[in-house]
Amino acid sequence: MTTSDVVSLLRQIEDTGRDPRGPGYQRPGFSATERELRDWFLAEADRRGLDTEIDANGITWAWATPPGDNAVVTGSHLDSVPGGGEFDGPLGVASALAAFDELKATGALERATRPLALAVFPEEEGSRFGVACLGSRLLTGAIEVDRALGLKDAAGDTFADVATSYGLDPERVGRDQSRLAGIGSFIELHVEQGLGLAGTDQAVAIGSSIIGHGRWHFAFTGQGNHAGTTPMSHRADPVVTASRVIGDVPTLAAATDTSAVATVGRTLIHPGGTNVIASAMSFWLDIRHADDAVVTQVLEAISRRAREHAADAGVEVSISQESYSPTTHFTADLNTRLTSVLPEAPLLPSGAGHDAGILAGHVPSAMLYVRNPTGVSHAPEEACEVDDQRAGVDALVAVLARELGVTGTPGPTGETGAGA
Amino acid sequence: MTTSDVVSLLRQIEDTGRDPRGPGYQRPGFSATERELRDWFLAEADRRGLDTEIDANGITWAWATPPGDNAVVTGSHLDSVPGGGEFDGPLGVASALAAFDELKATGALERATRPLALAVFPEEEGSRFGVACLGSRLLTGAIEVDRALGLKDAAGDTFADVATSYGLDPERVGRDQSRLAGIGSFIELHVEQGLGLAGTDQAVAIGSSIIGHGRWHFAFTGQGNHAGTTPMSHRADPVVTASRVIGDVPTLAAATDTSAVATVGRTLIHPGGTNVIASAMSFWLDIRHADDAVVTQVLEAISRRAREHAADAGVEVSISQESYSPTTHFTADLNTRLTSVLPEAPLLPSGAGHDAGILAGHVPSAMLYVRNPTGVSHAPEEACEVDDQRAGVDALVAVLARELGVTGTPGPTGETGAGA
Repeated sequence: MTTSDVVSLLRQIEDTGRDPRGPGYQRPGFSATERELRDWFLAEADRRGLDTEIDANGITWAWATPPGDNAVVTGSHLDSVPGGGEFDGPLGVASALAAFDELKATGALERATRPLALAVFPEEEGSRFGVACLGSRLLTGAIEVDRALGLKDAAGDTFADVATSYGLDPERVGRDQSRLAGIGSFIELHVEQGLGLAGTDQAVAIGSSIIGHGRWHFAFTGQGNHAGTTPMSHRADPVVTASRVIGDVPTLAAATDTSAVATVGRTLIHPGGTNVIASAMSFWLDIRHADDAVVTQVLEAISRRAREHAADAGVEVSISQESYSPTTHFTADLNTRLTSVLPEAPLLPSGAGHDAGILAGHVPSAMLYVRNPTGVSHAPEEACEVDDQRAGVDALVAVLARELGVTGTPGPTGETGAGA
Repeated sequence: MTTSDVVSLLRQIEDTGRDPRGPGYQRPGFSATERELRDWFLAEADRRGLDTEIDANGITWAWATPPGDNAVVTGSHLDSVPGGGEFDGPLGVASALAAFDELKATGALERATRPLALAVFPEEEGSRFGVACLGSRLLTGAIEVDRALGLKDAAGDTFADVATSYGLDPERVGRDQSRLAGIGSFIELHVEQGLGLAGTDQAVAIGSSIIGHGRWHFAFTGQGNHAGTTPMSHRADPVVTASRVIGDVPTLAAATDTSAVATVGRTLIHPGGTNVIASAMSFWLDIRHADDAVVTQVLEAISRRAREHAADAGVEVSISQESYSPTTHFTADLNTRLTSVLPEAPLLPSGAGHDAGILAGHVPSAMLYVRNPTGVSHAPEEACEVDDQRAGVDALVAVLARELGVTGTPGPTGETGAGA
């Protein structure tokens, strides 16, 4: 039914930011690649006659109707994790454009009682500066401005410097109350990141909550030495100690709660020579569970094990929290309205963080998830069938029409537009 | 007794190549830093009126007397491991210069019956291209030229490219029979890399052998996925598997032979995001033992464990050898002559590889080790007292005088010059 095709929109950017090291994408936040993707979005918005702006926090807005109070906003992000898939972020942005086209083509926009905007959030993955949802955290004040400006990327550049070269003014970065006050509903469409819909007859789900999620930094220091001349009995090798802890993470998480997840995906060894016993090794631990108390229990179990392994080896360990977000429930009233137009769509909790989760504490927010047959996410095997991509747009159109106060929007199954 | 001080020579380069990330040095092979150190050596050789040349393999030679057959050669290297110490390499180069000054000042050189040269070998540590003693391996043909030229550094540059920009001709790199044929004795002085002399009354030891040494690459591949949405029971996480193997390395090595050493100092995770279950992880394993059969046994035990952990986790593992050097004994006749002038010096085996170990298979070669009170090596805590540095030069003077056929060289204890 849609007059613009989400599939062809995604095809326009399928070659942007491909990972030169292998399959998948490299689209770091505030990088030249993210800027190229943003410029693509700006050009598409321009072609549609939308009024575009990049706000003080680097969030891109495209207004379908003159800006005003109680706006309906939809969108997502265009950055990726290293080696990420094609849909995580871009599906929500392309679906927003396609949904706009449908609402415009059917004349629904002319009857809208509320403003409509499309939005693109920067550095959602946190893969550059280590803080996920940096754009929405800045907008809502969920991160202190000084801390944000001081964040460093792997090259040692601060967010303040990078933001400046991106055209932002570090003096103006931070909570934007008037912009928040103007948002009446925020709806983010996103590819599903698990197997919640795979194998069911539903292509679209409604988000119920984002489960609690924290990141901790474990730093081990031992005695650097020569790999050939230092007897095994004389070593204080932080690589051995840290590796033993990483090897125990799955067992300790499962022993605490079988639905808890705990992951080490990033490590750092100093100095990192093949023939050198390292002097230091760090890893980052990601823990998530719907019950914040379980997250704490998993952290405590792993921390205790880290201290035991370190003490056995004469290695020092220090553990620090980098971020923590408790479980967030999406806005109940808004979800009730989503369910009214998508009565068949199941409610799904998410283990992944989203800008909609950050915004949910400040403005009515909701999410739509589109079926992922592999259940894989943050990897090239992430998938979304073209029929499901289109079903996601249909569902988004139905939800937006309901929020905009438009009646009679011809969704695929009539006025209520149940897209799934 | 020396007229030039090894301590002040080392002080001239103490600020070159300091590690910006912490204490210690970063002096990679064929880097701008190694070139700066080489230029320092060339300038010092020039000041002394030595004839200098850089040969086809990047080895720097400084001839104290006209080049000829049966030359006596002494020297070491100026590159370092990442985060290395001050003395590993430069002590042998500075001691060679100081020993030349002493032989010259005492008139011994005028009476020499053999030519004398000082030599500096490039990329001894192998920290840039992964192959230790690259210069001496090329000179002796211990590495195939095509393999050497194709070696890549972490930036993806080949040795062929880097050698070219260093002023070498890739067509001329490789075994240099006429140069080898001209070397009658090679003596390398080096800081000790263990505790063999610490706490004894000897400042200098004579090398007996270099124990067998190999490097293997272990590559694990699993399924990349989202750290928040993938249940622990659905994961094939190569980081967990590889870490479990690393954690078992010390136990498996010790169970095979208590004098075997096995080390992992370098790893690589793809893609390496905090909120990403990695799809691949590699590590490099360094194993050494005087008995080559023990090295094989340790490798087999670790490989078996790697396959078990991988099979348990649904992860693939592949294991490949990167280099292997069997145990090398220094030249018996030459060591007998060293012992005659240094009768108190103990004979020490070494767990560390050296250019002298590569040359030993081709020309008479020997090593002098100078006491290291910490026993630490390949780390900033590596140490050598100034009195011991000077004792090392005295021992080297005595050895060179003996090799040059000079009688009556006034060493600290007379003609035999026992420096320790």
